[in-house]
Amino acid sequence: MTLPIIGITLGDPAGIGTEVTLKALAHDSSLPEARIVLFGSRVMIEEEMRSLGLNLHIPSCKEIGPLTQPSLSLYEMETPIQSVPRGFPSALSGRASFLCFEEAVKRAREGAIQSLVTAPISKHSWNLAGVPYAGHTEYLSQIFPQAIMAFWSESLKVALFSHHIPLTDAIQRIRRDDLLDFFLRLEQTLSGTKIKTSRFLVAGLNPHAGEEGLLGSEESEVISPAIMEARAKGMSIQGPYPPDVVFRQALGQPETMVIALYHDQGLIPFKMVAFDEGVNVTLGLPFVRTSPDHGTAFDIAGKGVADPKSMIKAINLTTQLEK
Amino acid sequence: MTLPIIGITLGDPAGIGTEVTLKALAHDSSLPEARIVLFGSRVMIEEEMRSLGLNLHIPSCKEIGPLTQPSLSLYEMETPIQSVPRGFPSALSGRASFLCFEEAVKRAREGAIQSLVTAPISKHSWNLAGVPYAGHTEYLSQIFPQAIMAFWSESLKVALFSHHIPLTDAIQRIRRDDLLDFFLRLEQTLSGTKIKTSRFLVAGLNPHAGEEGLLGSEESEVISPAIMEARAKGMSIQGPYPPDVVFRQALGQPETMVIALYHDQGLIPFKMVAFDEGVNVTLGLPFVRTSPDHGTAFDIAGKGVADPKSMIKAINLTTQLEK
Repeated sequence: MTLPIIGITLGDPAGIGTEVTLKALAHDSSLPEARIVLFGSRVMIEEEMRSLGLNLHIPSCKEIGPLTQPSLSLYEMETPIQSVPRGFPSALSGRASFLCFEEAVKRAREGAIQSLVTAPISKHSWNLAGVPYAGHTEYLSQIFPQAIMAFWSESLKVALFSHHIPLTDAIQRIRRDDLLDFFLRLEQTLSGTKIKTSRFLVAGLNPHAGEEGLLGSEESEVISPAIMEARAKGMSIQGPYPPDVVFRQALGQPETMVIALYHDQGLIPFKMVAFDEGVNVTLGLPFVRTSPDHGTAFDIAGKGVADPKSMIKAINLTTQLEK
Repeated sequence: MTLPIIGITLGDPAGIGTEVTLKALAHDSSLPEARIVLFGSRVMIEEEMRSLGLNLHIPSCKEIGPLTQPSLSLYEMETPIQSVPRGFPSALSGRASFLCFEEAVKRAREGAIQSLVTAPISKHSWNLAGVPYAGHTEYLSQIFPQAIMAFWSESLKVALFSHHIPLTDAIQRIRRDDLLDFFLRLEQTLSGTKIKTSRFLVAGLNPHAGEEGLLGSEESEVISPAIMEARAKGMSIQGPYPPDVVFRQALGQPETMVIALYHDQGLIPFKMVAFDEGVNVTLGLPFVRTSPDHGTAFDIAGKGVADPKSMIKAINLTTQLEK
């Protein structure tokens, strides 16, 4: 039996991506049996291993074929990524992290990789490098407009109807057909995976979910009708619920996922309960993509103190999401 | 030395207000030394005491004068509140809870009461009774347009720039002068109390607080200038911060208060971390007003299982907020 192939991009080389990945690979016995291929800088890996006292054997590879034995290797980029000073964003590190990510996505689209785990990049570095995307998810959304941003933890699961846009734009995007389409895509993308999501709860937009029209009309005019239609199509979906209640309601219910209507509605509660163990997931792609839910943490980069917990969970979640 | 006078309105008589108040008064030794005056129904109090097995001595009183010994009494309403069936909203219970609240506010405005603790009313009952207010805070805001809605727990303190209005309206209300005025009023209303708030953190409106204009302009055009002006006037205020980070940042910092720009931005995180111990506070009134942060809980009314924790905290917080 051939093993799943998981690509891991090491993120901004000036941040903690390389560190948390190496720590996860070196110490965690819970990781899945897989062929793991890293996309990053050999110089930075060596540097990080020296400073962490690790000695992982990571040969280079150019081809990513199926294997029957677990293995770990570093993908050979056309132009090797050079050493960068750690601790701050730069055009150099932005360019490096973008090239690695772009290459890994390319290989995933070709089917060579089933799952992609992405360590954090710096939007600032990407900006300095002239990379015209706000982040991993925006890049993926460009190629796959049906991509869905979701957040995973043991206590709470959240999918975002919209993400990196101004709040007024997010409100304008709430239209019945688009909501319905989103609901059905979300259900479809999870069906056939090991994730058991038996119940989707939709947050309202307004305080108290509009309180029967007293505090806003989007619930009765747009959101409820979309939910009703999705239910009519057999989806187990309920709402809209008061936004300040629904996340609490879903807490600790492993088979429940909350659908948030805008970025902060979903991420405020998620970060309150799953600060250092959350996983960022992009659904609706032809491959699985997960990411630890933290940033580059430039302030602690190179100090050896970064916590690999979220990276470990991101790697493990890939096996749950495969079809 | 005369003791502080605390009025407690028992809320919707069909809900858990009477129960949590009696439990708090009967069992909690942490309550402040005070003259406590209840506003509610004697019949319902007697009924609740029988079912809880309590035997508090609660004489009636018409005048609320200062006393030097702790005391507990029931304010004599012009028309005594009758018994109502528990467990569901009704015009009868809506009218009862409104009359008690109205009378208590009247006595507080006259200066007879320094602090007012309000058990939960039912908006539905008020509606059935033809009471034209969405809740306690809306009634108070009508009389005192400068009232500020805030939420208190040991782990998190939040003030709301706006509350029960549709989200689109809440966004439109975010103007520089109004924000500045709000910031300064908030600081002023807490100064001179026992509450040490040395730091106010303002949440942004957009994802990542607008990310330097990429995800929204309200932060740079409106919110930041208002914060700068407040700082120039000596206030210890910072922001705007990414909304999904700032609440986490303030968690467990007793001297920090987060300013949320709309209802759910503040209440989603507050309810995640302080579900059964939060206190609702109205600041900026000529008297102190607190309230347990739960509803009438009609489903458990009369069953003896309601938790008085939030009510106890609401009573205790009054002494912290007195000037």
